[in-house]
Amino acid sequence: MTTSPFAPRPDEETVETGALLAPRFDADGLIVAIAVDADTGEALMVAHMNREALARTIETGSGWFWSRSRRKLWQKGEESGNTLEVAELRIDCDQDAILLKVRVAGDGVACHRGYRSCFYRSIPTGNAPSPATTLVFDRAMRRVTAKAR
Amino acid sequence: MTTSPFAPRPDEETVETGALLAPRFDADGLIVAIAVDADTGEALMVAHMNREALARTIETGSGWFWSRSRRKLWQKGEESGNTLEVAELRIDCDQDAILLKVRVAGDGVACHRGYRSCFYRSIPTGNAPSPATTLVFDRAMRRVTAKAR
Repeated sequence: MTTSPFAPRPDEETVETGALLAPRFDADGLIVAIAVDADTGEALMVAHMNREALARTIETGSGWFWSRSRRKLWQKGEESGNTLEVAELRIDCDQDAILLKVRVAGDGVACHRGYRSCFYRSIPTGNAPSPATTLVFDRAMRRVTAKAR
Repeated sequence: MTTSPFAPRPDEETVETGALLAPRFDADGLIVAIAVDADTGEALMVAHMNREALARTIETGSGWFWSRSRRKLWQKGEESGNTLEVAELRIDCDQDAILLKVRVAGDGVACHRGYRSCFYRSIPTGNAPSPATTLVFDRAMRRVTAKAR
């Protein structure tokens, strides 16, 4: 992509109270994106988009991301079939976070570890953390598959 | 904080399938955190935590963050009264994102712009974005207050 399909950033007031789409990409050219289930609201996964991933998501209505580890553009589900069908796309007040309300195709698994959500473990609260703090698996969230990506 | 209250990062398999809390902080020492309504699942806000903010959130059960713009530790709601009371804290598969399931205290406003959620605008999908793309305000999400932080 030679020219950006997004408006340059105006002043803060305009960004936050206006109707111009002017997403803020960080120093690495990325914006954080959160996918939630469009029907239940359940948080499914967090990933990053570069300009092209956001543009493709907007145009196609399917979730595209930038893989920081593989350094490549990536359609979620391109291998597993678990594409993210976007019911609604939102952006936050200062336009540095994207929210995808999605329906997960295929067997409904969003996490490469085979769970429907990446958030399958909780952190106990009420005590100061230590290097020995252990997580609690959500026993109600069964592992559907061992499929990835 | 002189020593980290968190375990050093083990190998990927252990991080993703084990029970050890070993959050990954980025080069700036930050981890992304998403707050959602504990009752409705609605996505409310996205912010960042440094080690101390995460440790305080775990210990106190109230949402603490690192403000990148003000460069200070910040209890959400410390000025507005809209603290985030954590019902449950989760971490994702590769432990680089925190999910807070919260109840917002005070008048229930999570966004410094006065809306209950920072995601009060949607991005139309189905066409390629351009620098003139405009957002659509969620007319059902009324602005509760003009309060900040």
